[in-house]
This record gives sequence, C-alpha cells and structure tokens, in this order.
Amino acid sequence: MGVRGQVSRLVMKFGGTSVADLERIRRVARLVNAEVQAGHSVAVVVSAMSGKTNELVAWTDGSGAAAQGLAPSDDEYDVVVASGEQVTAGLLAMALRNIGVAARSWLGWQIPIIADDAHGRARIDEVPPDKLAAAMDAGEVAVIAGFQGVTRDGRIATLGRGGSDTSAVAIAAAVKAIRCDIYTDVDGVYTTDPRIEAKARRLSKISYEEMLEMASLGAKVLQTRSVELAMAQGVPLRVLSSFIEPGDDTANAGTIVCDEEEIMEKRIVSGVAYSRDEAKISLFGLPDHPGVSSEIFGRLADANVNVDMIVQSHARTADTANMEFTVGKRDAARTVEIVRAAQKEIGFDDVAVNEDVAKVSVIGVGMRSHTGVAKTMFGALAEKGVNIQVISTSEIKISVLIDAAYTELAVRALHAAYGLDQL
Amino acid sequence: MGVRGQVSRLVMKFGGTSVADLERIRRVARLVNAEVQAGHSVAVVVSAMSGKTNELVAWTDGSGAAAQGLAPSDDEYDVVVASGEQVTAGLLAMALRNIGVAARSWLGWQIPIIADDAHGRARIDEVPPDKLAAAMDAGEVAVIAGFQGVTRDGRIATLGRGGSDTSAVAIAAAVKAIRCDIYTDVDGVYTTDPRIEAKARRLSKISYEEMLEMASLGAKVLQTRSVELAMAQGVPLRVLSSFIEPGDDTANAGTIVCDEEEIMEKRIVSGVAYSRDEAKISLFGLPDHPGVSSEIFGRLADANVNVDMIVQSHARTADTANMEFTVGKRDAARTVEIVRAAQKEIGFDDVAVNEDVAKVSVIGVGMRSHTGVAKTMFGALAEKGVNIQVISTSEIKISVLIDAAYTELAVRALHAAYGLDQL
Repeated sequence: MGVRGQVSRLVMKFGGTSVADLERIRRVARLVNAEVQAGHSVAVVVSAMSGKTNELVAWTDGSGAAAQGLAPSDDEYDVVVASGEQVTAGLLAMALRNIGVAARSWLGWQIPIIADDAHGRARIDEVPPDKLAAAMDAGEVAVIAGFQGVTRDGRIATLGRGGSDTSAVAIAAAVKAIRCDIYTDVDGVYTTDPRIEAKARRLSKISYEEMLEMASLGAKVLQTRSVELAMAQGVPLRVLSSFIEPGDDTANAGTIVCDEEEIMEKRIVSGVAYSRDEAKISLFGLPDHPGVSSEIFGRLADANVNVDMIVQSHARTADTANMEFTVGKRDAARTVEIVRAAQKEIGFDDVAVNEDVAKVSVIGVGMRSHTGVAKTMFGALAEKGVNIQVISTSEIKISVLIDAAYTELAVRALHAAYGLDQL
Repeated sequence: MGVRGQVSRLVMKFGGTSVADLERIRRVARLVNAEVQAGHSVAVVVSAMSGKTNELVAWTDGSGAAAQGLAPSDDEYDVVVASGEQVTAGLLAMALRNIGVAARSWLGWQIPIIADDAHGRARIDEVPPDKLAAAMDAGEVAVIAGFQGVTRDGRIATLGRGGSDTSAVAIAAAVKAIRCDIYTDVDGVYTTDPRIEAKARRLSKISYEEMLEMASLGAKVLQTRSVELAMAQGVPLRVLSSFIEPGDDTANAGTIVCDEEEIMEKRIVSGVAYSRDEAKISLFGLPDHPGVSSEIFGRLADANVNVDMIVQSHARTADTANMEFTVGKRDAARTVEIVRAAQKEIGFDDVAVNEDVAKVSVIGVGMRSHTGVAKTMFGALAEKGVNIQVISTSEIKISVLIDAAYTELAVRALHAAYGLDQL
C-alpha cells in the first residue's frame, strides 16, 4: 500500500535458492508483480542462481576439478564471479516482462554502486540514487545484480559471500525505501531453532541489536554486515520465505527487523540461540602476574584467531592460575600450536582442547532494564543438571558454554523458562 | 619483432573452442606470452567458452529444456549472454598472470566499445583507443571480452554470433595494430576443402575480396562482416590454428588476408568453393512480358527470402518463358508457398523445386585482367560429364549450379584445371 500522495519505494531481495531455476524465477516475478500491483515502486536485488557461483569459483582456485584451477587474482576473480548475478538479473527482467511488468536489469557499474577496491570483500562507498529512483518511480521494476559494485577506476568489485543482502540494504537506504524485504528459505526469525524446539514461535518483530546477536550466534538468517548497515541507515528489514505465492497473506508474513523503539510489546528475552562451532582451550599453571593475558591473546590476534569467551581462575593450592577461552573449531589446532610454540615465554604447564562444547545464549533488549535474567537462566540449567563451564555477557545477551551433549536439553529448558512458547 | 623505435601493437583473437577449458586457456596464455616476448604490445579478444553461450541462450527461448525457456527480450538477452565472454576474459587474465605476464580484463563498457542499440546484432560505432593503447604500451596485455559493446545510454549490446571476430578487427583498427590474428580450429585458408581434395594447399596470402567470396560461398573460416570491416579499415588479418604451441614456426603459419596490392605473386584463380545449401526453383510457362521478374522477386524480397542465381529462358514452341533461380534450402518451401499464392498475378503454369543441387565456384582477383577463366571451367566440367544448370558471375568469381551428386568430382576437376595443386 503506497502512502497517499507519495511514492512508496520497496526493495526486495532474493537469494540463490530462490532463483535456482526458471520455474523459481517465474515465481519471484509473480511475487514482485504483487508488490507492483499494491502500488509500490520496486527494486529487486538478486543473487546468482544456486550452484553457479560455486561453478565459477571452481575455475579460479586449486580446489577445482583435478586441482587444476587457476591461481586467482582478486580483481579478475571478481570479473568472473560477478557474471553469475548478471545472468539472474537479465533472466528475471525477462520473466517480469513475460507477465506484463515493465522491468530492466541494472548491473553494479550501471547504477553505479560505488565500492572500494578491496576486491572479493569490497565495501560500498556510495550509491547515487537518482537514475535508479527515477526508473522505479516511472513504473519500471529495477532488477539489480547483487553482490557487485564498481570501483572508482571502473573495475568490478564483489562484496564477498552474502554480499547481496548488503547490496539490497544499501540500495534501500539510497532510494529511501520504506522497507527492504529479504526473501530466503525460512519464513522468519524464530524464538529458537524449530528443529530443536517444536514450540518455537516466529517473532513478528525483532530489534537490530537482537538480530545482530542472533546472527553472530549461529542463527544464519541474515548476514551480520547487512544488519549493521540497516541499523546505521535506519532501513527496516523484513525476513520472509520466497516459497510463498502471491495471494498468501504476505502482509503479515515474516519477521520485521527494526529499531527497538518501534517494537511496542517489549520482551525481556526474545530468543535462545546456540552454536556448536566452538572449541574450548584450557591453559593450566599460568604464572599469576600482569601481562600474561596480553602475551597469549596478542599472539592469537596476530594470527587472526578470533577469541570469544574468556575466563581466568586461580588454583587453590599454588601461586598459579588457569585460563579457559573459546575459539572457532576450525582454529582450535592452530591455536594449540601457537601457544605451545610460545610455552616458555608465556610460562604454563599444560594445554588442553575440548571440542565437545556448545555455546547457548539468551538474547533480549529487555535485559537492559530488567534484572533477574541471569538468575532465571542459571536456575533453569541447574534444574536440568546442565553444568556451566564458561559464562560471558553483553548488554543484551548472556552466553554459557556447556557440554555439547546437553545442547538441545538446555535450549528447550531456556525457551520454556522465559515463556517463549507462549508469545 | 617490433618495428625499431616504435611500438608494434598486435591483436589476437581466440574463439570458443580455443578457450573451451582451463587447459586450453593455459595454452592460449602461452601463445600470447610468445608474442609479448617477441616485443609486441598485445590485446587478446576472447569468445565464451565453447558450449557456454548455448547454455545461456537455452534459458532465454522456448527451445530450452522442456520448452520452458523465457520469452527473450533483446536487451536483457544481451545482459545474459554477454556474461560468457566476461568469464573467459577474467580467466585468461588470471592464466597470463599465473605465468608472469602482466594482464587485465576489459569488458565492452570499460573500453568502451560503443555500439548501436540493435540488441543481439549491434554494430560497433566507435572504439576510443586511448585507455586501451596506453595499457597495452605500458606492457599490460589487454584481455578483451569479445562479442559485446555498450550503447550510448549504457546498456550492454551484443554483436551477434561470430561477433568476436568483428570485435577483434574493430579493436585492431582503433589501436592501429600491425595485424589481427584470428586463431581458430583450422590452420588457414585452403585452395579448396581438404576433405574433398587431398591436394588442397594452404594459401599464404589471399585478398579481402577473395576471402569475402570464399566466406559467402560456404568456406566458413571468417565471418563476412569482420572481413568487410578489415577491408574498410585496412587491417591485415591472419587466420591460423590455436592448436599449436609456442616454438612451432608460428611466424609462417596461417593465411594472411590483405589488400590485393600486397600479394606479390598473383594467381588467376585462388580457390574453388562449394555450397550444398542451395535449392533450385523452376517456374514454367511464364508470360513473356516486362514486369514478371519484379512481380516475383518483389514478393520474395518482401518476405526476406534471399535469391542468388537467376536465369530466364524462352520456350521454343510458345510465347512463354521459363525461369530458374536459387534460394537457401531453408527458404525453399516458403518460396514455393509465396509464388503459388500469387500464381494468378504472376501467371505461370507450374513450379518445381530441386534440392539436389550444389553451387561450385572458382574465385580469383586475376579474373579481372585475364580472359579464358570461364572457358577453362566449362571445359573441365564438360570433360567429366558434369551438366551445368545455371551460371552466375561476378568480377572475381564464376559459379555454376550442378547436380549435387557431382560436387566432389567437379571440385577436384576444377582444382586441377587451374593448377591449384601445384602452388
């Protein structure tokens, strides 16, 4: 529904599985048409057809067929892989015209979406809105190749995997869209993973901050980067399923991601997230003096190892301390190597790795103004006999590291403890 | 070898089979490197990897898998298919860097290759040479996506099938290249088809005019359009095989296509060509008065039927005439429909079609100044018992229509009669 007397621009974004073949592209065209009929000026951002990017990437590295891929160059890699979104944009423009909807494709260099020259992971600098907005308001759907921009010296630059979400948000901000709808293979953001807790409920709204915590904790609905950009630019997002047909009740579908202030009914906890991608590193018998932490974490930072939770405890009987911290599972072996190589300088007795751990978190902006959230969490876990190994907190979340075998039990217990099954 | 004290720019062009996979792209990189080492400033024009264009096209018309392709739009069709050359350009630039040769890809819009907006069959308007020539002369190989240009309002336009040859010639003209080398799957232009006459010889040089006659007569080595452009712009072409390795004697390889004046040793006849793509239409009992021809051929022209050879003869015993002419086999049935529909207006008794015919031609700029070429041709055919049905001539060729069963016999007889096996 357009705002009376004023154009209401809408950006829609469809990922690779939503445009995987011609039949799905035709469905996308019908969904776009429904928004045009509802009075919106529409821009659609598309990804490459599912599988196409992998095919293109295989030519450009050693992991291709028979390990015979070309050694990649970042700028030329971008030229090759950006072709995938170009194809989808052309096909969707055709599919729209096939059902009588005026449309044309726009490539990164045509708008232009100006990006820096960090090829393969470029950031968007600027999106001049004039040409695009004029075309949209003239009633022509703008079908935009996602994931790509153009550098100031005219080369193609891609934004990295998941960059199409970022393209969509940047365009929504540029044309002052009322909303950016991200169509994906799930129908919204849930209070927790429905595969673990059947009583999980779809949230109708969630704040940017909560979404960011969800995303970084393993609920991979939206790329962190696109949520950050939406928050900075004040673009409301909606996450919804592309596997619906026009005529379904799309007006109430999905989950809106917006400013905290626009969420009327505030909840203390909005969701329970988990991640099994953690490994716990334990260092025993550390000297108890200043500088030890920076000695350890400085080396890990130099090696680009991302450290998450950290806890330090004093041994009861000696003048030494133990330290536990978590890293991504893929970095675990490398982390052990790095600290072992510096055993003399750091000065510890032993190191151990435990990969059978999971991080479970409760997230909610209501924590800022409500006490007792941690107490409820620890109580619920204790009641089920779940032992907490490490705790970390931020302003709007509390995370605990537990034995991985207890993951589902803990998620369900917390989901019930905060009443999330009764939204 | 560069001209002393002056940059010698060279354009090389590789078609789809020459870049069909990474191994072939690596071989192309080695061939390019050899020319760089020889002191040339090099631009390389590439087609889409063999098969890729067909894959892209299949999505955009009803002939795709299960006849479910999208109805194509010319401008968006161009967006889709132009991606094929983009991929090859990026990959070849990488392959060159992999062997230590400075290179970058150039897309149609980056140079820019400015084309008109006849999408799918656009013509090149202009190629500003400054950026490209500067990059080449700085020692960076310019790897150019063929087949594509950009319209003045910034849309992608493709030049039609075989357009990469035209791209290469246009770029060679723009940067004032010493030559445009067209690498293909044959090693040059032959005096006739070696599959028919084992004694066929590769020509070291041929004039543009002769090449044009060869091309239009079925020797499909070069696109007519690219030869016309080369002739108009005075760009020497070389046709040679891409299935050679650097170190082979490439300096003397292939066939040069150039101005007649640059060919020292003039031959009266340069080659014997043939085409089995003809059908002969015979109209019997035409009224013998003015206006009949224009009545017939006007209708065929309106229907875009291309008529080639025409002969009219008077019947011995009546005041009527017969007429025979040839059209492409694919137009034969339609031609009969058109003349039958106008039987009253034209006023003829009967029409017949014969598809068992072949056109055999001898081509040579020497015909301009030598007599007796036709006599030799008719004599050689008569000696072998080959009956001539229709004759047509131009300044540099003589064509005859014969029974298709005699094609090989006629080709071999003519090849010998003009001494082409003894070059």
